[in-house]
Amino acid sequence: MYYKHIDGNKWAIVLSKGDNLINALKQFAIDNKIGGSINGIGALLWAELGYFDLGCNKYLRKRFEGGFELLALNGNIVYIDEPIIHIHVVLGNPDFQVIGGHLFDGEISITGEIIVSTWHKDSILRSNDEYTGLKLWKLDV
Amino acid sequence: MYYKHIDGNKWAIVLSKGDNLINALKQFAIDNKIGGSINGIGALLWAELGYFDLGCNKYLRKRFEGGFELLALNGNIVYIDEPIIHIHVVLGNPDFQVIGGHLFDGEISITGEIIVSTWHKDSILRSNDEYTGLKLWKLDV
Amino acid sequence: MYYKHIDGNKWAIVLSKGDNLINALKQFAIDNKIGGSINGIGALLWAELGYFDLGCNKYLRKRFEGGFELLALNGNIVYIDEPIIHIHVVLGNPDFQVIGGHLFDGEISITGEIIVSTWHKDSILRSNDEYTGLKLWKLDV
Repeated sequence: MYYKHIDGNKWAIVLSKGDNLINALKQFAIDNKIGGSINGIGALLWAELGYFDLGCNKYLRKRFEGGFELLALNGNIVYIDEPIIHIHVVLGNPDFQVIGGHLFDGEISITGEIIVSTWHKDSILRSNDEYTGLKLWKLDV
Repeated sequence: MYYKHIDGNKWAIVLSKGDNLINALKQFAIDNKIGGSINGIGALLWAELGYFDLGCNKYLRKRFEGGFELLALNGNIVYIDEPIIHIHVVLGNPDFQVIGGHLFDGEISITGEIIVSTWHKDSILRSNDEYTGLKLWKLDV
Repeated sequence: MYYKHIDGNKWAIVLSKGDNLINALKQFAIDNKIGGSINGIGALLWAELGYFDLGCNKYLRKRFEGGFELLALNGNIVYIDEPIIHIHVVLGNPDFQVIGGHLFDGEISITGEIIVSTWHKDSILRSNDEYTGLKLWKLDV
Protein backbone atom coordinates (compact mmCIF):
# COMPACT_ATOMS: atom_id res chain seq x y z
CA MET A 1 0.00 0.00 0.00
CA TYR A 2 1.06 3.50 -0.83
CA TYR A 3 -1.00 6.56 -0.03
CA LYS A 4 -0.75 10.27 -0.69
CA HIS A 5 -2.58 13.38 0.41
CA ILE A 6 -3.49 14.76 -2.98
CA ASP A 7 -5.77 17.72 -2.45
CA GLY A 8 -7.77 19.37 0.34
CA ASN A 9 -9.31 16.48 2.25
CA LYS A 10 -8.70 13.91 -0.51
CA TRP A 11 -6.23 11.03 -0.27
CA ALA A 12 -5.25 8.50 -2.94
CA ILE A 13 -4.42 4.93 -1.93
CA VAL A 14 -2.93 2.39 -4.31
CA LEU A 15 -2.97 -1.28 -3.32
CA SER A 16 -0.91 -4.01 -4.96
CA LYS A 17 -1.12 -7.75 -5.60
CA GLY A 18 -1.29 -9.57 -2.26
CA ASP A 19 -2.46 -6.61 -0.17
CA ASN A 20 -5.31 -7.34 2.20
CA LEU A 21 -7.95 -4.74 1.44
CA ILE A 22 -9.47 -4.31 4.91
CA ASN A 23 -6.16 -4.43 6.77
CA ALA A 24 -4.61 -1.88 4.43
CA LEU A 25 -7.47 0.60 4.80
CA LYS A 26 -7.43 0.14 8.58
CA GLN A 27 -3.69 0.84 8.63
CA PHE A 28 -4.28 3.96 6.50
CA ALA A 29 -6.85 5.18 9.04
CA ILE A 30 -4.60 4.47 12.03
CA ASP A 31 -1.57 6.09 10.40
CA ASN A 32 -3.46 9.29 9.61
CA LYS A 33 -6.05 9.41 12.43
CA ILE A 34 -8.85 10.36 10.04
CA GLY A 35 -12.36 9.32 9.12
CA GLY A 36 -13.74 9.45 5.61
CA SER A 37 -15.74 7.99 2.77
CA ILE A 38 -14.11 5.36 0.55
CA ASN A 39 -14.62 4.83 -3.19
CA GLY A 40 -12.59 2.68 -5.49
CA ILE A 41 -12.10 0.13 -8.22
CA GLY A 42 -9.54 -2.61 -8.88
CA ALA A 43 -9.40 -6.40 -8.81
CA LEU A 44 -9.62 -9.02 -6.05
CA LEU A 45 -8.22 -12.57 -5.94
CA TRP A 46 -10.83 -13.69 -3.40
CA ALA A 47 -13.42 -12.12 -1.14
CA GLU A 48 -15.39 -13.12 1.94
CA LEU A 49 -18.82 -11.52 1.61
CA GLY A 50 -21.60 -11.05 4.12
CA TYR A 51 -25.37 -10.59 4.08
CA PHE A 52 -27.05 -9.55 7.33
CA ASP A 53 -29.97 -11.89 7.98
CA LEU A 54 -32.58 -10.07 10.07
CA GLY A 55 -34.33 -13.38 10.83
CA CYS A 56 -31.45 -14.76 12.87
CA ASN A 57 -29.78 -11.41 13.50
CA LYS A 58 -26.38 -12.35 12.16
CA TYR A 59 -24.30 -12.22 9.01
CA LEU A 60 -24.37 -15.06 6.51
CA ARG A 61 -20.81 -15.35 5.23
CA LYS A 62 -19.37 -16.93 2.13
CA ARG A 63 -15.93 -16.93 0.58
CA PHE A 64 -15.65 -16.55 -3.20
CA GLU A 65 -12.51 -17.56 -5.12
CA GLY A 66 -11.36 -17.26 -8.69
CA GLY A 67 -10.58 -13.60 -9.27
CA PHE A 68 -12.94 -10.66 -9.70
CA GLU A 69 -12.99 -7.22 -11.17
CA LEU A 70 -13.75 -4.88 -8.27
CA LEU A 71 -16.54 -2.94 -9.96
CA ALA A 72 -17.60 -0.77 -7.05
CA LEU A 73 -16.11 -0.36 -3.60
CA ASN A 74 -18.16 1.98 -1.43
CA GLY A 75 -17.99 2.60 2.27
CA ASN A 76 -16.48 4.57 5.08
CA ILE A 77 -14.02 4.83 7.94
CA VAL A 78 -15.92 5.64 11.15
CA TYR A 79 -14.67 5.09 14.71
CA ILE A 80 -15.82 3.30 17.80
CA ASP A 81 -12.60 3.28 19.83
CA GLU A 82 -10.81 2.01 16.72
CA PRO A 83 -11.51 2.74 13.04
CA ILE A 84 -14.13 0.46 11.51
CA ILE A 85 -13.70 -0.15 7.78
CA HIS A 86 -17.27 -0.63 6.54
CA ILE A 87 -17.26 -1.55 2.87
CA HIS A 88 -19.77 -2.99 0.40
CA VAL A 89 -18.47 -4.38 -2.87
CA VAL A 90 -19.80 -5.34 -6.29
CA LEU A 91 -17.61 -7.95 -8.03
CA GLY A 92 -17.53 -9.11 -11.66
CA ASN A 93 -16.45 -12.56 -12.87
CA PRO A 94 -15.00 -13.68 -16.24
CA ASP A 95 -18.52 -14.10 -17.65
CA PHE A 96 -19.31 -10.50 -16.63
CA GLN A 97 -21.83 -11.78 -14.10
CA VAL A 98 -21.88 -9.98 -10.78
CA ILE A 99 -21.97 -10.82 -7.08
CA GLY A 100 -21.75 -8.59 -4.04
CA GLY A 101 -22.15 -8.04 -0.33
CA HIS A 102 -20.67 -6.59 2.82
CA LEU A 103 -16.90 -7.14 2.61
CA PHE A 104 -15.48 -9.10 5.53
CA ASP A 105 -12.16 -9.81 3.91
CA GLY A 106 -10.44 -9.79 0.54
CA GLU A 107 -7.09 -9.81 -1.22
CA ILE A 108 -5.98 -7.61 -4.10
CA SER A 109 -4.99 -9.52 -7.26
CA ILE A 110 -3.73 -6.71 -9.49
CA THR A 111 -4.40 -3.27 -8.09
CA GLY A 112 -6.75 -1.20 -5.98
CA GLU A 113 -7.28 2.44 -6.92
CA ILE A 114 -8.97 4.07 -3.96
CA ILE A 115 -9.94 7.63 -3.06
CA VAL A 116 -10.72 8.56 0.53
CA SER A 117 -12.51 11.84 1.13
CA THR A 118 -11.67 12.55 4.74
CA TRP A 119 -13.26 14.28 7.72
CA HIS A 120 -12.25 14.77 11.34
CA LYS A 121 -12.34 11.32 12.97
CA ASP A 122 -14.84 12.45 15.62
CA SER A 123 -17.34 14.04 13.18
CA ILE A 124 -19.21 10.73 12.96
CA LEU A 125 -18.89 7.90 15.48
CA ARG A 126 -20.40 4.42 15.75
CA SER A 127 -22.39 3.12 18.70
CA ASN A 128 -23.83 -0.27 19.55
CA ASP A 129 -27.37 -0.89 18.29
CA GLU A 130 -29.31 -2.91 20.84
CA TYR A 131 -31.59 -4.55 18.28
CA THR A 132 -29.07 -5.91 15.80
CA GLY A 133 -25.85 -5.86 17.80
CA LEU A 134 -24.33 -3.90 14.94
CA LYS A 135 -22.28 -0.74 15.38
CA LEU A 136 -24.29 1.97 13.60
CA TRP A 137 -23.54 5.62 12.83
CA LYS A 138 -24.17 8.14 15.60
CA LEU A 139 -24.28 11.74 14.35
CA ASP A 140 -25.06 13.68 17.51
CA VAL A 141 -21.44 14.00 18.51
CA MET B 1 -33.10 10.32 9.63
CA TYR B 2 -30.36 12.34 11.20
CA TYR B 3 -27.97 14.50 9.24
CA LYS B 4 -24.95 16.59 10.00
CA HIS B 5 -22.76 19.07 8.11
CA ILE B 6 -19.41 17.42 8.65
CA ASP B 7 -16.87 19.27 6.58
CA GLY B 8 -16.75 21.89 3.82
CA ASN B 9 -19.56 20.90 1.46
CA LYS B 10 -19.96 17.40 2.85
CA TRP B 11 -22.97 16.15 4.83
CA ALA B 12 -23.51 12.81 6.53
CA ILE B 13 -27.01 11.30 6.65
CA VAL B 14 -27.88 8.25 8.71
CA LEU B 15 -31.15 6.45 8.01
CA SER B 16 -32.78 3.92 10.33
CA LYS B 17 -35.08 0.90 10.07
CA GLY B 18 -38.39 1.98 8.54
CA ASP B 19 -37.13 5.19 6.92
CA ASN B 20 -38.24 5.73 3.34
CA LEU B 21 -35.06 6.35 1.38
CA ILE B 22 -36.41 8.73 -1.28
CA ASN B 23 -38.62 10.70 1.10
CA ALA B 24 -35.80 11.14 3.60
CA LEU B 25 -33.34 12.42 1.00
CA LYS B 26 -35.97 14.79 -0.40
CA GLN B 27 -36.61 16.13 3.10
CA PHE B 28 -32.87 16.60 3.59
CA ALA B 29 -32.73 18.63 0.36
CA ILE B 30 -35.75 20.76 1.28
CA ASP B 31 -34.48 21.40 4.81
CA ASN B 32 -31.09 22.58 3.60
CA LYS B 33 -31.93 24.04 0.18
CA ILE B 34 -28.93 22.38 -1.47
CA GLY B 35 -28.07 20.23 -4.46
CA GLY B 36 -25.42 17.56 -4.42
CA SER B 37 -24.17 14.13 -5.33
CA ILE B 38 -25.24 11.15 -3.21
CA ASN B 39 -23.21 8.06 -2.35
CA GLY B 40 -23.99 5.44 0.23
CA ILE B 41 -24.37 1.91 1.50
CA GLY B 42 -26.76 0.17 3.89
CA ALA B 43 -29.63 -2.30 3.71
CA LEU B 44 -33.16 -2.19 2.26
CA LEU B 45 -36.25 -4.19 3.24
CA TRP B 46 -37.81 -3.74 -0.20
CA ALA B 47 -37.24 -1.68 -3.31
CA GLU B 48 -39.25 -0.64 -6.35
CA LEU B 49 -36.84 -0.56 -9.27
CA GLY B 50 -37.18 0.90 -12.74
CA TYR B 51 -35.66 0.34 -16.19
CA PHE B 52 -36.35 2.94 -18.84
CA ASP B 53 -37.58 1.19 -21.99
CA LEU B 54 -36.72 3.29 -25.04
CA GLY B 55 -39.09 1.21 -27.18
CA CYS B 56 -42.22 2.36 -25.39
CA ASN B 57 -40.64 5.43 -23.79
CA LYS B 58 -41.57 4.61 -20.24
CA TYR B 59 -40.18 2.95 -17.15
CA LEU B 60 -40.73 -0.75 -16.50
CA ARG B 61 -41.26 -1.04 -12.75
CA LYS B 62 -40.97 -3.98 -10.39
CA ARG B 63 -41.06 -4.29 -6.64
CA PHE B 64 -38.57 -6.62 -4.95
CA GLU B 65 -39.09 -7.94 -1.42
CA GLY B 66 -37.06 -9.99 1.00
CA GLY B 67 -34.27 -7.75 2.23
CA PHE B 68 -31.13 -6.60 0.43
CA GLU B 69 -27.70 -5.32 1.20
CA LEU B 70 -27.52 -1.87 -0.41
CA LEU B 71 -24.22 -2.39 -2.21
CA ALA B 72 -24.06 0.88 -4.11
CA LEU B 73 -26.31 3.92 -3.97
CA ASN B 74 -25.29 6.57 -6.50
CA GLY B 75 -27.14 9.62 -7.66
CA ASN B 76 -27.84 13.27 -7.15
CA ILE B 77 -30.14 16.01 -5.91
CA VAL B 78 -30.92 18.39 -8.79
CA TYR B 79 -33.88 20.79 -8.98
CA ILE B 80 -36.72 21.50 -11.32
CA ASP B 81 -38.94 23.62 -9.09
CA GLU B 82 -38.54 21.00 -6.37
CA PRO B 83 -35.55 18.75 -5.61
CA ILE B 84 -35.48 15.54 -7.66
CA ILE B 85 -33.80 12.61 -5.92
CA HIS B 86 -32.32 10.61 -8.82
CA ILE B 87 -30.76 7.41 -7.52
CA HIS B 88 -29.56 4.15 -9.05
CA VAL B 89 -28.99 1.20 -6.73
CA VAL B 90 -27.22 -2.15 -6.78
CA LEU B 91 -28.74 -4.63 -4.31
CA GLY B 92 -27.41 -7.96 -2.98
CA ASN B 93 -29.53 -10.90 -1.81
CA PRO B 94 -28.75 -13.69 0.69
CA ASP B 95 -27.12 -15.76 -2.08
CA PHE B 96 -24.88 -12.79 -2.91
CA GLN B 97 -26.58 -12.44 -6.27
CA VAL B 98 -27.26 -8.91 -7.42
CA ILE B 99 -30.09 -6.89 -8.93
CA GLY B 100 -30.37 -3.19 -9.69
CA GLY B 101 -32.08 -0.31 -11.35
CA HIS B 102 -33.40 3.22 -11.05
CA LEU B 103 -34.81 3.54 -7.52
CA PHE B 104 -38.46 4.60 -7.45
CA ASP B 105 -39.01 3.71 -3.81
CA GLY B 106 -37.47 1.74 -0.97
CA GLU B 107 -37.43 1.26 2.78
CA ILE B 108 -34.41 0.96 5.03
CA SER B 109 -34.20 -2.33 6.97
CA ILE B 110 -31.17 -1.73 9.18
CA THR B 111 -29.28 1.44 8.32
CA GLY B 112 -28.33 3.78 5.51
CA GLU B 113 -24.92 5.47 5.65
CA ILE B 114 -25.01 8.27 3.12
CA ILE B 115 -22.66 11.08 2.16
CA VAL B 116 -23.91 14.06 0.17
CA SER B 117 -21.33 16.28 -1.44
CA THR B 118 -23.25 19.49 -1.96
CA TRP B 119 -23.31 22.39 -4.37
CA HIS B 120 -25.46 25.49 -4.75
CA LYS B 121 -28.94 24.31 -5.72
CA ASP B 122 -28.96 26.37 -8.91
CA SER B 123 -25.56 25.17 -10.20
CA ILE B 124 -27.29 22.36 -12.10
CA LEU B 125 -30.99 22.30 -12.96
CA ARG B 126 -33.24 19.80 -14.73
CA SER B 127 -35.39 20.55 -17.75
CA ASN B 128 -37.95 18.55 -19.68
CA ASP B 129 -36.56 16.45 -22.53
CA GLU B 130 -39.01 16.45 -25.44
CA TYR B 131 -37.96 13.02 -26.73
CA THR B 132 -38.22 10.93 -23.59
CA GLY B 133 -40.37 13.07 -21.36
CA LEU B 134 -37.67 12.73 -18.71
CA LYS B 135 -36.23 15.64 -16.74
CA LEU B 136 -32.56 15.76 -17.73
CA TRP B 137 -29.64 17.84 -16.47
CA LYS B 138 -29.28 21.34 -17.87
CA LEU B 139 -25.84 22.87 -17.24
CA ASP B 140 -26.09 26.23 -18.99
CA VAL B 141 -27.49 27.97 -15.93
CA MET C 1 -21.33 16.63 -23.79
CA TYR C 2 -21.64 19.70 -21.67
CA TYR C 3 -19.58 20.31 -18.56
CA LYS C 4 -19.43 22.95 -15.87
CA HIS C 5 -17.13 23.78 -12.97
CA ILE C 6 -19.69 23.80 -10.20
CA ASP C 7 -17.85 24.16 -6.93
CA GLY C 8 -14.29 24.01 -5.59
CA ASN C 9 -12.70 21.06 -7.39
CA LYS C 10 -16.02 19.59 -8.55
CA TRP C 11 -17.21 19.46 -12.17
CA ALA C 12 -20.54 18.28 -13.56
CA ILE C 13 -20.65 16.56 -16.95
CA VAL C 14 -23.88 15.75 -18.76
CA LEU C 15 -23.79 13.31 -21.67
CA SER C 16 -26.54 12.88 -24.24
CA LYS C 17 -27.91 10.14 -26.50
CA GLY C 18 -25.18 9.05 -28.92
CA ASP C 19 -22.22 10.35 -26.90
CA ASN C 20 -19.32 7.95 -26.56
CA LEU C 21 -18.64 7.71 -22.85
CA ILE C 22 -14.87 7.14 -22.90
CA ASN C 23 -14.18 9.65 -25.69
CA ALA C 24 -16.24 12.33 -23.95
CA LEU C 25 -14.47 11.91 -20.62
CA LYS C 26 -11.10 11.94 -22.36
CA GLN C 27 -12.02 15.16 -24.16
CA PHE C 28 -13.12 16.66 -20.83
CA ALA C 29 -9.71 15.80 -19.34
CA ILE C 30 -7.78 17.19 -22.31
CA ASP C 31 -9.84 20.39 -22.41
CA ASN C 32 -9.28 21.10 -18.73
CA LYS C 33 -5.87 19.49 -18.14
CA ILE C 34 -7.00 17.88 -14.87
CA GLY C 35 -7.03 14.52 -13.13
CA GLY C 36 -9.82 13.35 -10.88
CA SER C 37 -12.17 10.67 -9.66
CA ILE C 38 -15.32 9.92 -11.68
CA ASN C 39 -18.74 8.88 -10.36
CA GLY C 40 -21.97 8.75 -12.24
CA ILE C 41 -25.22 7.18 -13.33
CA GLY C 42 -27.22 7.16 -16.57
CA ALA C 43 -28.05 4.72 -19.35
CA LEU C 44 -26.02 2.99 -22.07
CA LEU C 45 -27.13 1.64 -25.46
CA TRP C 46 -24.25 -0.84 -25.60
CA ALA C 47 -21.02 -1.50 -23.76
CA GLU C 48 -17.80 -3.39 -24.40
CA LEU C 49 -16.70 -4.85 -21.08
CA GLY C 50 -13.41 -6.38 -19.98
CA TYR C 51 -12.20 -8.85 -17.35
CA PHE C 52 -8.46 -9.12 -16.81
CA ASP C 53 -7.48 -12.78 -16.92
CA LEU C 54 -4.35 -13.31 -14.83
CA GLY C 55 -3.87 -16.77 -16.38
CA CYS C 56 -3.16 -15.44 -19.84
CA ASN C 57 -2.34 -11.89 -18.74
CA LYS C 58 -4.81 -10.16 -20.97
CA TYR C 59 -8.32 -8.78 -20.98
CA LEU C 60 -11.26 -10.93 -22.01
CA ARG C 61 -13.59 -8.62 -23.92
CA LYS C 62 -17.26 -8.86 -24.75
CA ARG C 63 -19.75 -6.46 -26.26
CA PHE C 64 -23.24 -6.28 -24.76
CA GLU C 65 -26.19 -4.82 -26.66
CA GLY C 66 -29.78 -4.03 -25.83
CA GLY C 67 -29.74 -1.04 -23.52
CA PHE C 68 -28.75 -0.82 -19.87
CA GLU C 69 -29.33 1.35 -16.87
CA LEU C 70 -25.88 2.59 -15.84
CA LEU C 71 -26.17 1.72 -12.15
CA ALA C 72 -22.66 2.62 -11.07
CA LEU C 73 -19.84 4.26 -12.95
CA ASN C 74 -16.68 4.52 -10.87
CA GLY C 75 -13.15 5.33 -11.90
CA ASN C 76 -10.57 7.99 -12.47
CA ILE C 77 -8.61 10.18 -14.84
CA VAL C 78 -4.89 9.59 -14.30
CA TYR C 79 -2.11 10.41 -16.77
CA ILE C 80 0.71 8.60 -18.48
CA ASP C 81 1.60 11.12 -21.19
CA GLU C 82 -2.11 11.34 -22.02
CA PRO C 83 -5.13 11.04 -19.72
CA ILE C 84 -6.26 7.44 -19.16
CA ILE C 85 -9.98 7.07 -18.47
CA HIS C 86 -10.15 4.02 -16.20
CA ILE C 87 -13.76 3.12 -15.48
CA HIS C 88 -15.60 0.12 -14.07
CA VAL C 89 -19.34 -0.11 -14.62
CA VAL C 90 -22.31 -2.01 -13.22
CA LEU C 91 -25.17 -2.30 -15.74
CA GLY C 92 -28.81 -3.30 -15.27
CA ASN C 93 -31.03 -4.94 -17.88
CA PRO C 94 -34.85 -4.88 -18.31
CA ASP C 95 -35.19 -7.87 -15.93
CA PHE C 96 -33.19 -5.93 -13.31
CA GLN C 97 -30.37 -8.45 -13.61
CA VAL C 98 -26.88 -7.02 -13.55
CA ILE C 99 -23.60 -7.38 -15.47
CA GLY C 100 -20.37 -5.46 -15.14
CA GLY C 101 -16.69 -5.09 -15.88
CA HIS C 102 -13.91 -2.78 -16.94
CA LEU C 103 -15.38 -0.41 -19.54
CA PHE C 104 -13.54 -0.45 -22.86
CA ASP C 105 -16.21 1.38 -24.77
CA GLY C 106 -19.85 2.40 -24.56
CA GLU C 107 -22.51 4.72 -25.95
CA ILE C 108 -25.01 6.78 -24.01
CA SER C 109 -28.66 5.98 -24.79
CA ILE C 110 -30.49 8.63 -22.75
CA THR C 111 -28.21 10.57 -20.44
CA GLY C 112 -25.08 10.39 -18.34
CA GLU C 113 -24.96 12.40 -15.10
CA ILE C 114 -21.34 12.47 -14.03
CA ILE C 115 -19.43 14.23 -11.28
CA VAL C 116 -15.65 14.56 -11.48
CA SER C 117 -13.81 15.49 -8.31
CA THR C 118 -10.56 16.87 -9.65
CA TRP C 119 -6.94 17.12 -8.57
CA HIS C 120 -3.77 18.47 -10.18
CA LYS C 121 -3.02 16.21 -13.15
CA ASP C 122 0.46 15.33 -11.83
CA SER C 123 -0.69 14.38 -8.28
CA ILE C 124 -1.05 10.77 -9.40
CA LEU C 125 0.53 9.29 -12.51
CA ARG C 126 0.45 5.84 -14.13
CA SER C 127 3.50 3.73 -14.95
CA ASN C 128 3.97 0.45 -16.77
CA ASP C 129 3.74 -2.64 -14.58
CA GLU C 130 6.25 -5.23 -15.77
CA TYR C 131 4.19 -8.23 -14.60
CA THR C 132 0.82 -7.48 -16.16
CA GLY C 133 1.70 -4.94 -18.82
CA LEU C 134 -0.97 -2.71 -17.30
CA LYS C 135 -0.47 0.95 -16.50
CA LEU C 136 -0.90 1.15 -12.71
CA TRP C 137 -1.02 4.12 -10.31
CA LYS C 138 2.30 5.57 -9.18
CA LEU C 139 2.00 7.82 -6.12
CA ASP C 140 5.60 8.77 -5.43
CA VAL C 141 5.52 11.74 -7.78
